[in-house]
Amino acid sequence: MIIVMQKQAAPEAVARVVETIRSRGLQEHISRGEERTIIGAVGDERVFDANELETLPGVERAIRVLNDWRIISREAQPEDSVITVRGVAFGGGRMLDIAAAPERAARADAVFTDPFYLPAKPYAGTVSGSEAEQIRAMRDELARCHAAGRPVLVRIRDVRQIEAALDAEADILYLGGELMSNRALQDEVGRLNTPVVVCKDKHHRADDWLVAAEHIAVRGNHHIILGEAGTLSFEPEHTYRLDTDAVVRVRRTSHLPVIANISRLWHNDMPQEILYRLAEAAGVNGVVSSLR
Amino acid sequence: MIIVMQKQAAPEAVARVVETIRSRGLQEHISRGEERTIIGAVGDERVFDANELETLPGVERAIRVLNDWRIISREAQPEDSVITVRGVAFGGGRMLDIAAAPERAARADAVFTDPFYLPAKPYAGTVSGSEAEQIRAMRDELARCHAAGRPVLVRIRDVRQIEAALDAEADILYLGGELMSNRALQDEVGRLNTPVVVCKDKHHRADDWLVAAEHIAVRGNHHIILGEAGTLSFEPEHTYRLDTDAVVRVRRTSHLPVIANISRLWHNDMPQEILYRLAEAAGVNGVVSSLR
Amino acid sequence: MIIVMQKQAAPEAVARVVETIRSRGLQEHISRGEERTIIGAVGDERVFDANELETLPGVERAIRVLNDWRIISREAQPEDSVITVRGVAFGGGRMLDIAAAPERAARADAVFTDPFYLPAKPYAGTVSGSEAEQIRAMRDELARCHAAGRPVLVRIRDVRQIEAALDAEADILYLGGELMSNRALQDEVGRLNTPVVVCKDKHHRADDWLVAAEHIAVRGNHHIILGEAGTLSFEPEHTYRLDTDAVVRVRRTSHLPVIANISRLWHNDMPQEILYRLAEAAGVNGVVSSLR
Amino acid sequence: MIIVMQKQAAPEAVARVVETIRSRGLQEHISRGEERTIIGAVGDERVFDANELETLPGVERAIRVLNDWRIISREAQPEDSVITVRGVAFGGGRMLDIAAAPERAARADAVFTDPFYLPAKPYAGTVSGSEAEQIRAMRDELARCHAAGRPVLVRIRDVRQIEAALDAEADILYLGGELMSNRALQDEVGRLNTPVVVCKDKHHRADDWLVAAEHIAVRGNHHIILGEAGTLSFEPEHTYRLDTDAVVRVRRTSHLPVIANISRLWHNDMPQEILYRLAEAAGVNGVVSSLR
Repeated sequence: MIIVMQKQAAPEAVARVVETIRSRGLQEHISRGEERTIIGAVGDERVFDANELETLPGVERAIRVLNDWRIISREAQPEDSVITVRGVAFGGGRMLDIAAAPERAARADAVFTDPFYLPAKPYAGTVSGSEAEQIRAMRDELARCHAAGRPVLVRIRDVRQIEAALDAEADILYLGGELMSNRALQDEVGRLNTPVVVCKDKHHRADDWLVAAEHIAVRGNHHIILGEAGTLSFEPEHTYRLDTDAVVRVRRTSHLPVIANISRLWHNDMPQEILYRLAEAAGVNGVVSSLR
Repeated sequence: MIIVMQKQAAPEAVARVVETIRSRGLQEHISRGEERTIIGAVGDERVFDANELETLPGVERAIRVLNDWRIISREAQPEDSVITVRGVAFGGGRMLDIAAAPERAARADAVFTDPFYLPAKPYAGTVSGSEAEQIRAMRDELARCHAAGRPVLVRIRDVRQIEAALDAEADILYLGGELMSNRALQDEVGRLNTPVVVCKDKHHRADDWLVAAEHIAVRGNHHIILGEAGTLSFEPEHTYRLDTDAVVRVRRTSHLPVIANISRLWHNDMPQEILYRLAEAAGVNGVVSSLR
Repeated sequence: MIIVMQKQAAPEAVARVVETIRSRGLQEHISRGEERTIIGAVGDERVFDANELETLPGVERAIRVLNDWRIISREAQPEDSVITVRGVAFGGGRMLDIAAAPERAARADAVFTDPFYLPAKPYAGTVSGSEAEQIRAMRDELARCHAAGRPVLVRIRDVRQIEAALDAEADILYLGGELMSNRALQDEVGRLNTPVVVCKDKHHRADDWLVAAEHIAVRGNHHIILGEAGTLSFEPEHTYRLDTDAVVRVRRTSHLPVIANISRLWHNDMPQEILYRLAEAAGVNGVVSSLR
Repeated sequence: MIIVMQKQAAPEAVARVVETIRSRGLQEHISRGEERTIIGAVGDERVFDANELETLPGVERAIRVLNDWRIISREAQPEDSVITVRGVAFGGGRMLDIAAAPERAARADAVFTDPFYLPAKPYAGTVSGSEAEQIRAMRDELARCHAAGRPVLVRIRDVRQIEAALDAEADILYLGGELMSNRALQDEVGRLNTPVVVCKDKHHRADDWLVAAEHIAVRGNHHIILGEAGTLSFEPEHTYRLDTDAVVRVRRTSHLPVIANISRLWHNDMPQEILYRLAEAAGVNGVVSSLR
């Protein structure tokens, strides 16, 4: 951690920062420049919250030097992770074709399914059945896909659905972006052995994504795949777009496999075929699409 | 719904759109301009999904005319809703001061508490106890606040926590932005009588917010307060900012009370005092802050 | 133009809108739905400014049906435009490799040069010479490139530089995004026969870009190439990113060639090689890069 | 400047960074942590470009410690600057009311005028006359305002218009955001004594704004007012919004006066009255509006 003091910071303010650093088991390293005093905190700065130091008197800025992830970083493991499910390798050399439309299962490498989906429009005739029916439909679909030899990614939308998905022999649990903030659910998933896709939410930066993945890895589950399913766009008619930049960044920073889910990102001005090529150019290891 | 056809759209394409409109119980209204044919769908367009029509051949754009909310709109009720809890009126003329720091309870109008919070940094010494301990602490805090005559807003982070919060006599359930996509939880909250705060997530537009509120209202619970707790910023060091524009828009479009939660939006360049004044200028009915 | 009236709009408000429509030479087309009255303005709506109608009493929204461009649209010309300069075809089937580093001229299809660049940091030792020296250096560079048989794109940053660039036999004038708002300069460029690159600025949407191109085309110069050089990113350390979505949109909407300038968009997390592949996947007709 | 080395950086890479630092007249200060070596560059880091060091082998990140502005900073001058024009104080205690509609001149503190405006829509009947006519109209308007004792802010859109504006006795030159990238124009303005408003463009961060102001101050003109006229919004129907956060930041970081121009930021969901209150809450020293 590097702490930049304000120009006019008093010696007592510097002493206060030094004391805080030592109290957490780190060592200070002071460098007095002409315009600023800069204090390095040597040791494992991950015990600090940046804001914690910025609120001390006389502090202008506190800058983290280490990242908040370790297990999932390329520094910890330079070569790509490979997660193999029913013989299909996520993160191996080949880019996987994952079908969002189940009727294409036989021609795809894997299948994505979203059994607990509930529509977002209050008045769009909701035909979805009870949870019991949803679970039954999920079981049937998984059985069909497994008969065809295909692994299935099952999207869960609530912590209560994990058990039902595992009972139905889901091969991979898919956590949509809205679960990026659900630490309790991540704790549970972190204690499983089942592979899990962690999706970035529409407003998250790449680093938040890596922190969520590390959160799961720390709890013991290292079978993690990163999922990208859209970020905010500025175009008025199309709210979301594929975040190719974030994919490139996490591919360089982490050894985890990355997949893109483009099945809801296309529109009249952006056909799925082009999204597929963009995801490929960004270096993903697989694409969920409803292309036929 | 208004459907703008492509310049070169064939008569069959127009016929196909008309047929789709009629099949859903609406009536068409065709207007042939020099450069474009435009088709109006007269009736309750809420049965349509815009994309549904845009994928028909020859269609350039489908534009919704009606909004996806009705119950919560100012057209349905021109005057402000008022929700009174333990004698405190949300949405009345007075702007409420809601304390995020419980020690200030006695001097505030109401108290906000976040008993199920789990930290987001994998290595930030997590000292949070078990869920049983969280619940016990929540009960104690609510009892203290109620003894002081203050209503309490309890943030829940998962559907399983609703019951515990109600058992502890939570006055208002507070749904953070990450629950905006959780329709199952909204369904449950919609069947309660307890007032609920619906927060916009960091990447949502004002209209998504109103749709989530309507979703709850349709299920029967009309005691809804809109909550704004930050949207994406472009400044590199500060990820989020107060969304004053969205507050202004929903105050004009809906009769629901609106509160702003600024307790996590301040930073070195944006003191809470100014956030408070900005929220007030935008017209909120209450502010959650950790100001003393 | 479609005008959606407020629910409670009075008959006088409708009459006022009709009168405004007629006064501009268009015809009205009224459709009274259960919840709203909708008025279509049939004729060339481009004479209206959307805001103009939205400020009339009782109007909820005014929606444009026609785009603000005509000459440059695919409706006007379905096949791609091709602009050939010194034997090199912009917009033909082949993707052009345009060198931002002049030493690579011999191996590239064309050369990009920025002779009038002035650095943006007040204290970064500005070594740039006088304008006379800048012009002399430009002349020399153009002479060398022309000797090697390569066309040159010359970036101008001010209307006063057009003449100097043409005197030096610039093959293509390159207008950076900051000139998107400079209508006076666009007027001058519109009266020339020299091909021109019109770059989208960092905050513009695709439609603003097309409007600027049409502005030039209307004045007579149809030799227009669209240029994409970055849009805002949310990642804190990297301000800009390649706008692949906008490229895809304008390629579908317009027949003009599109090039991407990636020479300033790369950084530690985004190598130029990947930017090149992303631009290619989005369908550009050429890439300006400093790759060797 | 602080340089964070990659975990596996070789001693030669460290030596190379040290050499670069010394070659520019600064001193190094090395701190070897367990996971990273960190190098401080002590001295005036403003001679460096951050990218310059990040491209050296073994460097992970280069972080600036000093800001790129000095003259305009609160560190250089803690108290607010006051710029007085025709008896009206910009930056004094009172918030100024600046009329964008000239007919309100008599009741306002100052008048804003945009004589060189050209409309952005190719087909919106352009009624604007020749530049000679624009200049004549500007002269008349300035004469009228001066007769009423009001100072006038004149928006220029091109370097060629400076002279005409000064000839007409413009009191303050107003540079719109699109001129933030025009260093040549800023050079000229920097050599004048006339006060100048420097507007942030829609896509700029607060720091870019301060750099542009410093660029002018370095050249000698210290009569600078910062102007905020909108930044990008996410709401689909309204492209821009008032950047209250940037106003708050620059008010704290700089001693320069700040004004907001809200005359083009209002729309059906955001009345000018509320924009005015928001600007006031953010702490501006004046507001340009078309309120009556």
